[in-house]
Amino acid sequence: MSATPATPARSTDSTVPAVPGSPAARVSVSVLGLGLMGTALATAFMGAGHDVTVWNRTHARTGPLAARGARPALTPSEAVALSDVTVLCLTHNAAVEDIFAVLGGQVTGKTLVNLTNGTPEQARALSRWATAQGARYVDGGIMAVPQMIGGPHAYVFYSGDEEAFRAYRPLFAALGGTRFVGTDPGLASVHDLALLTGMYGMFVGVSHAFALARSEGIAAGDLAGPLSEWIGAMLLGVPADAEAVDSGEHRTDVSNLLVNQAALTNFTATYRARGLDTAFFEQLQSMLDRAVDRGHGADGLSRLVDVITK
Amino acid sequence: MSATPATPARSTDSTVPAVPGSPAARVSVSVLGLGLMGTALATAFMGAGHDVTVWNRTHARTGPLAARGARPALTPSEAVALSDVTVLCLTHNAAVEDIFAVLGGQVTGKTLVNLTNGTPEQARALSRWATAQGARYVDGGIMAVPQMIGGPHAYVFYSGDEEAFRAYRPLFAALGGTRFVGTDPGLASVHDLALLTGMYGMFVGVSHAFALARSEGIAAGDLAGPLSEWIGAMLLGVPADAEAVDSGEHRTDVSNLLVNQAALTNFTATYRARGLDTAFFEQLQSMLDRAVDRGHGADGLSRLVDVITK
Repeated sequence: MSATPATPARSTDSTVPAVPGSPAARVSVSVLGLGLMGTALATAFMGAGHDVTVWNRTHARTGPLAARGARPALTPSEAVALSDVTVLCLTHNAAVEDIFAVLGGQVTGKTLVNLTNGTPEQARALSRWATAQGARYVDGGIMAVPQMIGGPHAYVFYSGDEEAFRAYRPLFAALGGTRFVGTDPGLASVHDLALLTGMYGMFVGVSHAFALARSEGIAAGDLAGPLSEWIGAMLLGVPADAEAVDSGEHRTDVSNLLVNQAALTNFTATYRARGLDTAFFEQLQSMLDRAVDRGHGADGLSRLVDVITK
Repeated sequence: MSATPATPARSTDSTVPAVPGSPAARVSVSVLGLGLMGTALATAFMGAGHDVTVWNRTHARTGPLAARGARPALTPSEAVALSDVTVLCLTHNAAVEDIFAVLGGQVTGKTLVNLTNGTPEQARALSRWATAQGARYVDGGIMAVPQMIGGPHAYVFYSGDEEAFRAYRPLFAALGGTRFVGTDPGLASVHDLALLTGMYGMFVGVSHAFALARSEGIAAGDLAGPLSEWIGAMLLGVPADAEAVDSGEHRTDVSNLLVNQAALTNFTATYRARGLDTAFFEQLQSMLDRAVDRGHGADGLSRLVDVITK
């Protein structure tokens, strides 16, 4: 069913005809879990003209979507029965497991797409269960915040049942880009966690930089430009680091671990002198020390991968 | 003295006429410390046509530069006496202190430019000493690896004696961009450390991401593209984070601390299951826990700055 005229205009999908016969075949899809993300997913599916059913543990959450044309289901069983595809977006995979346990054989012949945040192990276990029930299981890692869903910069990593992925790729395209990373259902989670790990590292570094600047009366707004520019410039070295990791050849004439090991004492001293948390630097120092102790002092920072791998 | 024709062609400065009457007035400059960085600095000054004297604790290091036209000095005193400006680039500021102690009153009337890695406290103490001796002191933080010096992407933060900075800015321009950040001599170090902190955070994140990928048989080279792209996209949010830090208003409807706190358990579990180091995630979790305990669960990651500031 189509989005009503009351639906706020959205950046890209509003141009997709919300009628049968549109380029993307109309699919019946149920969305289980209507937090910020689940609501964004259901909204995007509706905007692309699909036949959307919604369910949420707290039923009242279905109200706004129902007012715009989604069919509210009272139970997960009802939601799964009404659609060919069921997309799960819950708080955690324990909630997905609970729902699977209740559904049992009702999933036979259905396609289950789990976009809940979780671990590769959880994705693999859920896939085994679904497959044993005669369902097709696709796992996904959403690389976007809810506000980005359906926009030009959102995409989702998918893994698991490739045939199901290909069959419903036009449906998934309503959410953003679609990147299939392998038939092992855990791989979407691996990619999702890896990219977010890089992001968390960046955020931790930026937060410390802002704290240091503030301790010296420098506004974060004044530091933000040079800081982003510098991190962006250093990002250009990531492909070379990747090559070092893949080849095992980490020698460098740019900035080796001994140089960084010596420099890091300045960071710890400076942050400590201002009463700022030094745990990040102590941990990095410990990583550098271990790598140098193993005889890697002349190698670049890419060698830290071997210290993280115990 | 000018670079000899034997000097390897360099990207940008080779076009600067190495003769008196060139746009940049010829300056007598001594470089103390000829590690990779000091050698790059001396080479850039020579390439820009300045009158360069070099000194290194191990005298043999002066050989290659002397062969290309630099004047080798046998002692720091000799080097300082021969030039108006002395640039120091040593292993650490303890070495700078040692040299200052030996020089004593010989620095009167001279300009000392300390580009050695160090802390703001060290820069301030060295500036006090130099000023008391009647010297002008400029501190600097080099935002480049040696290979970049003199090229289009290198720049240096300067702080301290602003008059000296302005007088010798054309000399400094031989190294790359010149960014003066304040008359407090510690500020160049603060900026340098803040930007490198951001970089270390990014590197730590990327190294963990590569370790996770490798544990699943995913080549770092295959992850590098999506990983850099994702971190680059998240970097675009740094100015908004800075605004939150400066205003103290961290509320977000994008991805708050409670959401991140819940998600982080997946990271710790996933890395632990592969025998990978989980210290980074445990530390981040502790930061998130502290912020949430203080009632900031609905705030964005920018709130972490307050947890780092004890």
